[in-house]
Amino acid sequence: MQKDVQVREVGPRDGLQLVKQFMPTETKIAWIKAEAEAGVVDFEVTSFVPPSVIPQFADARDVATESLKIDGINAMVLVPNLKGAEMAFETGSPKVNGIVSVSKTHNKANVRRTRDDSVEGFRKIVELRNNTPEYANLKVGCGLPTALGCTLEGNVAESEVLKVAEQLLDAGADEIMIPDTVGYASPSQVRSLLKQVIPLCGDIPVVAHFHDTRGLGLANVYAALEAGCTRFDASLAGFGGCPFAPGATGNIVTEDLVFLLEAEGLKTGIDVMALRKAREILTGALPEEAAHGAILKAGLPKGFVPATAQVAAE
Amino acid sequence: MQKDVQVREVGPRDGLQLVKQFMPTETKIAWIKAEAEAGVVDFEVTSFVPPSVIPQFADARDVATESLKIDGINAMVLVPNLKGAEMAFETGSPKVNGIVSVSKTHNKANVRRTRDDSVEGFRKIVELRNNTPEYANLKVGCGLPTALGCTLEGNVAESEVLKVAEQLLDAGADEIMIPDTVGYASPSQVRSLLKQVIPLCGDIPVVAHFHDTRGLGLANVYAALEAGCTRFDASLAGFGGCPFAPGATGNIVTEDLVFLLEAEGLKTGIDVMALRKAREILTGALPEEAAHGAILKAGLPKGFVPATAQVAAE
Repeated sequence: MQKDVQVREVGPRDGLQLVKQFMPTETKIAWIKAEAEAGVVDFEVTSFVPPSVIPQFADARDVATESLKIDGINAMVLVPNLKGAEMAFETGSPKVNGIVSVSKTHNKANVRRTRDDSVEGFRKIVELRNNTPEYANLKVGCGLPTALGCTLEGNVAESEVLKVAEQLLDAGADEIMIPDTVGYASPSQVRSLLKQVIPLCGDIPVVAHFHDTRGLGLANVYAALEAGCTRFDASLAGFGGCPFAPGATGNIVTEDLVFLLEAEGLKTGIDVMALRKAREILTGALPEEAAHGAILKAGLPKGFVPATAQVAAE
Repeated sequence: MQKDVQVREVGPRDGLQLVKQFMPTETKIAWIKAEAEAGVVDFEVTSFVPPSVIPQFADARDVATESLKIDGINAMVLVPNLKGAEMAFETGSPKVNGIVSVSKTHNKANVRRTRDDSVEGFRKIVELRNNTPEYANLKVGCGLPTALGCTLEGNVAESEVLKVAEQLLDAGADEIMIPDTVGYASPSQVRSLLKQVIPLCGDIPVVAHFHDTRGLGLANVYAALEAGCTRFDASLAGFGGCPFAPGATGNIVTEDLVFLLEAEGLKTGIDVMALRKAREILTGALPEEAAHGAILKAGLPKGFVPATAQVAAE
């Protein structure tokens, strides 16, 4: 089926990142499998960070390897640096996502080096891929944390986002991801930024990644759609809350995002109500964590035909 | 201060409508006063329905009367019919809001008469105002429940909404309110409908009223803004959930709506963080009810200057 929009499930990475309780590897895989059965194709399944930094990802290699055995999915991984990328490439991850914070202060605090050094680090990841024949089919994307605001610097200039995006494209990025890392963005801001980033990237796809910390996540999605964005990150049940905002939602809720897109007539390839099984695995495994989301509680509107189902019926 | 947008607090009416536990009159008034202190001017404070139908509004007359004593607010009331309007006018309510469901099935189920009879009933309310000299300054608005979808009929045709709106304008409505009664609407649908209703209404203001039942409430607000809508209903802490969708949000959350609008550079006249006191009165009085909303948990973005505060600084 030809999809209009791509929904990427980043819960196993971004959603779990701050969750203290370790989720067993087999549960993570069961969760991913259940979402794949509902039609989700693209996942960020783990992060290759040292277990001393984030114990939740102590099983990164196993999750990455096991995910590759699930039919029909694209199991991406996050890597904070070249060392993580080396490990990820070795497992055969089809897409490795680096990060360079636009906020220089945030980049320094997050990975303890300058932003320019991070850009050079990303270039080395691309070069490693380019110089290794068996990695020829692997993709390298890059996220730009704080592109829409920073808890340390506050507002982040559009010109700085464009500058970093240009550097990453020059370094050979296969994809650019624009996140609202801390949930600061408003719709007009999103639309304005993406209307500049998307043309800059040309054939290189742009992914929008919103957090719902301040309630504007899906409004920002709508604004991003207007700017021509067709790829969105989300997290099942909105996992990924902020430790400094108790009870706050994390990433936008996958199931609500799918409903929004399907209601807008856009084919996601995902059966929204079939996400319930995956949600039950997740909330069953982590009953102490706040679970968010509306559509699975409320059900579809009477007579609602998702865009994806309309295609199937044609 | 010149406001760009009007935020109407409908929690004391729509938010409480389904709440079984009676909220004492003095608590209702304390809640309204606390929101007024944060800058909210427009309220729908109660509904003149028989106490046998909704016991929560057994104190309608007292709430309406006491609200009139609060400085600087516009205390509207809902009336289901002429009898309710008579009582409301007697208390001196400055604006009385009638209702006519666009879905004929819903109108019949809700008020046990045909839609045409309801339009005629609304006309009689306007005539009562027109024919009573002491009511000359009182306004009569009308809401169109199910304008964006109906649990009984499913999809509701735009042409039917426009037809009913025209009938109500002809009957003398001073304001038209377009609600997504059951949380079915998507942003493009909202924009499409309002782009037709607003020009039809000309100088008569149009209010959008969204429920967040399926998570799209604020995305719908953004779409309504694009269609030129500048008046929005909301409910503090998102009170007003649906009895058929446990845990589902009701009306869009007042405090998150204010944040969205201020972040979009639109002056609401409301200090969003000052809504906390009112929220505490509400959640303290009804601790068993689900309270929603993000901004008061997360706090404003670093360096954020609300549009309203920018005006104050000029």
